Amino acid sequence: MKELARRVLEEGQDLGRGILKVDGFINHQIDPQLMQHAGQELASRFAHLEPTKVLTAEISGIAPALATALALGVPVIYARKTRPITMCEPVLVESAPSHTRGLEVLLMVSPEYLDAAARVLIVDDFLATGLTISALTRLVAQAGATLIGIGVLIEKAFENGRTALSKLDVPIEALVTIAAMEEGRIILEK
Amino acid sequence: MKELARRVLEEGQDLGRGILKVDGFINHQIDPQLMQHAGQELASRFAHLEPTKVLTAEISGIAPALATALALGVPVIYARKTRPITMCEPVLVESAPSHTRGLEVLLMVSPEYLDAAARVLIVDDFLATGLTISALTRLVAQAGATLIGIGVLIEKAFENGRTALSKLDVPIEALVTIAAMEEGRIILEK
Repeated sequence: MKELARRVLEEGQDLGRGILKVDGFINHQIDPQLMQHAGQELASRFAHLEPTKVLTAEISGIAPALATALALGVPVIYARKTRPITMCEPVLVESAPSHTRGLEVLLMVSPEYLDAAARVLIVDDFLATGLTISALTRLVAQAGATLIGIGVLIEKAFENGRTALSKLDVPIEALVTIAAMEEGRIILEK
Repeated sequence: MKELARRVLEEGQDLGRGILKVDGFINHQIDPQLMQHAGQELASRFAHLEPTKVLTAEISGIAPALATALALGVPVIYARKTRPITMCEPVLVESAPSHTRGLEVLLMVSPEYLDAAARVLIVDDFLATGLTISALTRLVAQAGATLIGIGVLIEKAFENGRTALSKLDVPIEALVTIAAMEEGRIILEK
């Protein structure tokens, strides 16, 4: 997706150790039109698989997942990391290490909204190591629902998350793929 | 806004102690079309004040703020509660007690994105005690920016947040106002 690739190259910042800062248009501050276009593009790549729910993890997954769900016309669920008092038992729980926060996080979904009939498209901002997305796929499995695909805005190919997720045998789509980040330079895959 | 009022009455759950569960269409699971319509309605009420940024607090503020910002065609900033490693100094910080989590939370915004030239519309899912929104208004003041209004999906009038915010002398708009919740019954203001 050219519009997103251009923004990543122009405004993304390599903070070292594989960390890409995109706080000006994806995280912290969001460009809503860019996010809408990204959601429309992800929706177009998965619509033929007829997802009935989009699933993401709070916090930074919410915007791309909402934009995708809006384009698909299906509800979006965001897995909670802390349990609000409105979330009643039973709760589906998985855990994943957080890359950007340096600790283990829980991901919780209420089976009220994720049931066995659901055809689930997972959407997130980043595919890096794949550990968060892998935890989301386990939540889908716990619910007895069907995973139909995984879509992300930006893949950091050098962190090999795609390999970790390939055993799931569902399509994985990234709108922009970063091959490497070297000395402050962001190098996209062709 | 009739569509939202109907959903609150039909699907909202009074959990007691003033807590309203709207996890099926606003929090946890989001109805994207409903959220889009709510954002368009909030945008229409504030467009004449020419906001240049929408500001909200993660987590549940992100969806309504994004929908409003999309309709206005301006960026949205979500204040962070935990500081990601991509958020560099200096950082604007305020604190607020969390109603649904039972602890004090920090709200952090990078002045990179919120500067003195900004005309800020604050958007959140709920106006209850007004303490979170009040912390957001203090972030706007810290940045030297101009607050132009406050818009929320649902106001719990019985928690008096509007009174607490009235000294700011900006328009406060709620799409649905709950007068009272009594023995499981949700009573809307006319």
